[in-house]
Amino acid sequence: MYDDSCGDFSPAERDAVYKAIFSRRDVRREFLSTNLDDAVLMRLLAAAHAAPSVGFMQPWSFIVIRDPSVKTAVQTLFREANDEAAAMFEPERRPFYSRLKLEGICTAPLNLCITCDRDRAGPVVLGRTHMRDMDIFSTVCAVQNLWLAARAEEVGVGWVSIFHEAKLKQLLRIPERIVIVAYLCLGYVSHFAESPDLERAGWRQRLSLSSLIHRERWVEAIEDQPNAVE
Amino acid sequence: MYDDSCGDFSPAERDAVYKAIFSRRDVRREFLSTNLDDAVLMRLLAAAHAAPSVGFMQPWSFIVIRDPSVKTAVQTLFREANDEAAAMFEPERRPFYSRLKLEGICTAPLNLCITCDRDRAGPVVLGRTHMRDMDIFSTVCAVQNLWLAARAEEVGVGWVSIFHEAKLKQLLRIPERIVIVAYLCLGYVSHFAESPDLERAGWRQRLSLSSLIHRERWVEAIEDQPNAVE
Repeated sequence: MYDDSCGDFSPAERDAVYKAIFSRRDVRREFLSTNLDDAVLMRLLAAAHAAPSVGFMQPWSFIVIRDPSVKTAVQTLFREANDEAAAMFEPERRPFYSRLKLEGICTAPLNLCITCDRDRAGPVVLGRTHMRDMDIFSTVCAVQNLWLAARAEEVGVGWVSIFHEAKLKQLLRIPERIVIVAYLCLGYVSHFAESPDLERAGWRQRLSLSSLIHRERWVEAIEDQPNAVE
Repeated sequence: MYDDSCGDFSPAERDAVYKAIFSRRDVRREFLSTNLDDAVLMRLLAAAHAAPSVGFMQPWSFIVIRDPSVKTAVQTLFREANDEAAAMFEPERRPFYSRLKLEGICTAPLNLCITCDRDRAGPVVLGRTHMRDMDIFSTVCAVQNLWLAARAEEVGVGWVSIFHEAKLKQLLRIPERIVIVAYLCLGYVSHFAESPDLERAGWRQRLSLSSLIHRERWVEAIEDQPNAVE
């Protein structure tokens, strides 16, 4: 599938990497019921497992969920948390929030819970001595590797983050020391949207890249662009 | 460079994405002094800016550092922290640790500090209501996007995490509310190593992917593979 000894990227190969990066989407509504077979899944997990990790710790694990009853139980946890979330927004924004579709847990044929084992390499980890969360960051890099590989496989991925972690850990029988980093919904899709759902819905605008760049040192406060008006 | 409307990936395009994922390395010693021009840099930053972000928050900023005096000051902070780090390992492992090359701050022509502004979208952020660090995770996704784009551009990236964050923030005049997520060294390289430095050095072994996969629920404790013997 790939040749490690071939270091050079052709212009077409380079463009393919950018294509995956720019056309990747957080998918919630476009999932098809088509099965995602294990051969594709294993390629995606191998991509995740090739992520950089602090001290070569490889702290990630993957819980593959296909059982509808487990997905339904997870969706119930999402709905409880999402009701709480809606109540946190200012009253005038709540109806907008409640209209957004934020997960595809049961419609996606496959769910994937990606965790971080903070003790996997002993108490002192090379590169984690001063930034304690580097192992969590490594696990996020694994998520993003998988997400881009999925895009190249025409597989949509949606990241669901509206949960009480303790309840989700209990449901999935995840031990105490393990941290949940991501809960993903995966499946083939009818199409990939041209822009992020929240941008199209007018929830927030795309920031200009140039406003986010400093030279040599932080120079001035970034002017935040306000939330778009409903 | 890419066409958003072209959703389908050819097998060659798919393979190019995997090639970037599997041949990406954390680079410390292979940097060339060749300048990295702004056109390439802007493509890499655009790739980072295309990362997923919780609530479309886009919390990242980028400090581009080319000034040798700034890099030297950063390297001094690294060395202070790295001496502390070495002392944290068991005595028999310290000489091994001290022989490892862990940064290319001054040899890389460009350094990049990637930060997260936790207040960029106001106090209540869609998707961050229950997982407070989702904005940090979004910023890590931006790092990994940039890292893979860099690999496709034949640009090496090394992530340096051995710092006291407060000292690095002071040096780069980063405001209090902003969190440093990554400090990266970037430049063209003599070559990309075939495997991770720490794997080749025998610091730790590659874990088997199958040992990291659970089905439906977490089933048993993962047997950790011990650190390789020096």
